Amino acid sequence: MSQYRTFTAADAVEYAKQFGGLDNPSVLTSAEEVGDGNLNLVFKIFDQQGVSRIVVKQALPYVRCVGESWPLTLDRVRLEAETLIEHYKYAPQHTVKVLHYDAELAVMVMEDLSDHKIWRGELVKGVYYPQAAAQLGEYLAQTLFHTSDFYLHPRTKKAEVARFTNPELCEMTEDLFFNEPYIVHERNAYPVALEPLVASLRTDDELRIAVAGLKHHFFAHAEALLHGDIHSGSIFVTESSLKAIDAEFGFFGPIGFDVGTALANLLINYCALPGLLSPREAADGREQRLKEVQGVWLAFAERFLALAASKTTDLALAYPGYAKAFLRQVWTDTVGYCGVEIIRRTVGISQVADIKNITDEAMRHECLRHAITLGRTLILAAEHIDDAEALIARVRQAG
Amino acid sequence: MSQYRTFTAADAVEYAKQFGGLDNPSVLTSAEEVGDGNLNLVFKIFDQQGVSRIVVKQALPYVRCVGESWPLTLDRVRLEAETLIEHYKYAPQHTVKVLHYDAELAVMVMEDLSDHKIWRGELVKGVYYPQAAAQLGEYLAQTLFHTSDFYLHPRTKKAEVARFTNPELCEMTEDLFFNEPYIVHERNAYPVALEPLVASLRTDDELRIAVAGLKHHFFAHAEALLHGDIHSGSIFVTESSLKAIDAEFGFFGPIGFDVGTALANLLINYCALPGLLSPREAADGREQRLKEVQGVWLAFAERFLALAASKTTDLALAYPGYAKAFLRQVWTDTVGYCGVEIIRRTVGISQVADIKNITDEAMRHECLRHAITLGRTLILAAEHIDDAEALIARVRQAG
Repeated sequence: MSQYRTFTAADAVEYAKQFGGLDNPSVLTSAEEVGDGNLNLVFKIFDQQGVSRIVVKQALPYVRCVGESWPLTLDRVRLEAETLIEHYKYAPQHTVKVLHYDAELAVMVMEDLSDHKIWRGELVKGVYYPQAAAQLGEYLAQTLFHTSDFYLHPRTKKAEVARFTNPELCEMTEDLFFNEPYIVHERNAYPVALEPLVASLRTDDELRIAVAGLKHHFFAHAEALLHGDIHSGSIFVTESSLKAIDAEFGFFGPIGFDVGTALANLLINYCALPGLLSPREAADGREQRLKEVQGVWLAFAERFLALAASKTTDLALAYPGYAKAFLRQVWTDTVGYCGVEIIRRTVGISQVADIKNITDEAMRHECLRHAITLGRTLILAAEHIDDAEALIARVRQAG
Repeated sequence: MSQYRTFTAADAVEYAKQFGGLDNPSVLTSAEEVGDGNLNLVFKIFDQQGVSRIVVKQALPYVRCVGESWPLTLDRVRLEAETLIEHYKYAPQHTVKVLHYDAELAVMVMEDLSDHKIWRGELVKGVYYPQAAAQLGEYLAQTLFHTSDFYLHPRTKKAEVARFTNPELCEMTEDLFFNEPYIVHERNAYPVALEPLVASLRTDDELRIAVAGLKHHFFAHAEALLHGDIHSGSIFVTESSLKAIDAEFGFFGPIGFDVGTALANLLINYCALPGLLSPREAADGREQRLKEVQGVWLAFAERFLALAASKTTDLALAYPGYAKAFLRQVWTDTVGYCGVEIIRRTVGISQVADIKNITDEAMRHECLRHAITLGRTLILAAEHIDDAEALIARVRQAG
């Protein structure tokens, strides 16, 4: 029986030899730990030529609370691996392949994606991947449709909801997205210069009520098995490929949460570009982002409707016109969650490189101000923004 | 260890002596089986004076599928008992008290309610219980608020959702409420004379899409631990008391489902009264029903808001104004589910005494026609019926 122990590089190599599924595992010779070392160890396992062939990821227990939280901590590897395995069934081209996992060791062996780059880093540098938006939309449609009530048998769905109960990671989202940016909280990380703007969020009744509604949907609307954290830093890209990783927040929640998170990180980049690139490059990049926002939604909606038309198993949900009506609600949720993600990435603790990499302080504050204002607008206007085109018009309007 | 066996009357007496919680259990001497004998045995346990003191209810396995469905069948007793126990914590005056249950024996020991009467029977006879509406509203508010995201800690709520996963009984609702009345199905039980009206439901796109939306919410919106079947036949009343029984459909679902089911059975009675009573008594009874419909909703909403104001534990949901905004959505759901319950009780298999007891065939058909038309109106107009007063206006308008 396996028992938790922290892996050394040598352990990781041995583990990859055993579970990496290579025809000739003996070629694996060395490992490098490339994770941030805080919550997870991430080892790249190299062959004799120094080519990375396999990735071994191991969850570390939270250092400060090894006692009580231990079992939950281990469980996040099961949840991540099972979410990826489930999503891989339906979007194999866009989901990292899990080769093996062991819940007790809190370890997961995955395909190597060294030929890919993290999308956020590329967006920050102004590198454009024209195919990424459509691929992301495809990924979202395939994973979310096939884990929804349209497709799963009701008994299977109910069992899956129970299997993917993810209290610890959901609680992080519940706090970081929906509470902390709207109260005075030590973890918030916006600059002092923005205090008046941020303070105005706290007392905006309409905004706070809308955020409460989005949090309530996050709690209660078990529509599909979400990735749960599908931002541009959880997405690997090449010229022709897009792969989602890091699904430890997976659980059954509102479809608009995943779609909105994806769009939000494109819009944060939109807001940040003037601080990152030359004016001309920034203008080009902004148009690319808007095109991507529309492209993600259109690809998602088109594929979702096509899947609903051909593969819906539920008799009532299969009625012609229902899937389209449902997607209108998903869109409203999407715009709202998009706004919430923008605000939690700018006001809250989880700041992103798009903003952090802006060296000029005044410019960085301006970009933050722009993003926060946009986030608020989206949350408030979600029910009045009819489609992706109207969303883009709102974004242009906001500056 | 207990092992399933069907109880005889003598077994039931012995069991009640052991688990009925009486100070002097030896007074229990005899039992009478009063259930319908189809799915459950229900024994009243009498003392020497012939007074019923305890009820013993045992689930029978479905006769036709003893093999495969056995374990699920037993589980419905756990679900019923646990739902009643949970609801009793918050509405002890309006929930039957479970004294003991054994999941393996599929048996439950409950307080005796022989001094109460089934509300439906009283409604059919034209007996008015002026306090019942407010008590039912109170029951709904207490049970639904305290099992919602407003009150439960997110981790507790998630564990409770998993604990109350109820696939078998939910599937009955999914089929009987949302599918069968809208298709040609052998279980439907409306008279041939109504074929044109019922056939028109099947091809009403707007209606079918609205019903699909309500089914989808039933699948996915885990708002609170519902009773799941809170019609007037699951409610015992006296002049001063109201108690809910029969909670085997308990699961986490949309709050409007319970509220709508409760209102629907009052409105079915409203439609049936001209066939049950003299014109004058029927007119009086109809006014009572409308008053009750409003009374249930107002009592529910008022108590829910008061509980939300004083006992909400979630930081975001506690924001002033949110509970009221949420109740507007609950109201829309309520009107929709009310329409769905009316239609499944008139078109579908689960016909009710209010209609069945109408001896004049033409009158019975007229009452059915009225109810089906009302049900359809409510489903279609749910988003445009702003409050209980507007609902009552619609009902009066429909005849």
